[in-house]
Amino acid sequence: MQALIERIKKEGRNLGNGILKVDGFINHQVDPGLMDQCGQEFARRFHAIGATKILTAEISGIAPALTTAFHMKLPVVYARKHKPITMPDQVFLTLTPSHTKGRIVELIISPEYLAGGEKVLIIDDFLASGATILGLVRLANSAGAQVVGIGALVEKTFEGGRQALQHLGIPIETLARIRQMDGDQIIFED
Amino acid sequence: MQALIERIKKEGRNLGNGILKVDGFINHQVDPGLMDQCGQEFARRFHAIGATKILTAEISGIAPALTTAFHMKLPVVYARKHKPITMPDQVFLTLTPSHTKGRIVELIISPEYLAGGEKVLIIDDFLASGATILGLVRLANSAGAQVVGIGALVEKTFEGGRQALQHLGIPIETLARIRQMDGDQIIFED
Repeated sequence: MQALIERIKKEGRNLGNGILKVDGFINHQVDPGLMDQCGQEFARRFHAIGATKILTAEISGIAPALTTAFHMKLPVVYARKHKPITMPDQVFLTLTPSHTKGRIVELIISPEYLAGGEKVLIIDDFLASGATILGLVRLANSAGAQVVGIGALVEKTFEGGRQALQHLGIPIETLARIRQMDGDQIIFED
Repeated sequence: MQALIERIKKEGRNLGNGILKVDGFINHQVDPGLMDQCGQEFARRFHAIGATKILTAEISGIAPALTTAFHMKLPVVYARKHKPITMPDQVFLTLTPSHTKGRIVELIISPEYLAGGEKVLIIDDFLASGATILGLVRLANSAGAQVVGIGALVEKTFEGGRQALQHLGIPIETLARIRQMDGDQIIFED
């Protein structure tokens, strides 16, 4: 999506080790107009997959998942990384490595909000190695729900996430695809 | 705001110890249409305060802050509770007790996204004791920014947060005001 690609070109910064700094408009400061446009675009691309719920992971996935959910008129659930006291004792929990945190994190969903038979669209900020999204897929499956689509704002195609998700056989849509980050250069797929 | 009050009456649950469970539409599963209505309402109530930026705290503040920011056409910054590697080494940090977590949490903002002279509207999900919001006020002040308004979806008036913020002399707007929670009963202010 051109607006997102232009913004990354203008403000994104390569911090090395595959880390892209986009915290001026995606994951610390957020541009709500841009997030709304991204949500509209996901809604357009996924309008025909029959999703009944949007699923994401806190924290950075919340903004794009919320705007997508708004335009698709669906509820959104964000997997928690720490179990809050408002959640029942019996939960769905999976472990997933976090590249940017350098450790294993928990992803937790209450069975109250993900039921068997749901058709889930996963929306996140990044598709890198695919580890977080695979964690969300495991959570959905343990709830008896079916994942019917995956969307991410930014894909780092050089980290292999798309290949890791290919076996699911479902549509994967990303709005900005980065092929390479080299010094000050961020190079997008054509 | 009637839509929010009705939803709390229908789905909110008193878990005891002043804890209100609203994780079916605010802070685990989110109703994006309701959040959009709340954002519109905050935008209406705060349209004349001259805010230049919305400030909130991760995680549950993000949804209402984002929709408010969208309707006010302002950027939104969410204070992080753990410093991500994309943030510079020098940050604004404050400590605040978390009632629902039962421990002290950090609130961290990058100086890149909160500058002197900014006029800040704080939006959060709950106004209870006011501790988290006072933490955000300290962060804004240490950046040289001025807080010009405070909004929360749900106020628990029996926890004294409004009194704790009164010395700031700025508008405080909440969309559902709960006077008492007693067994299965959630009693709203008139």
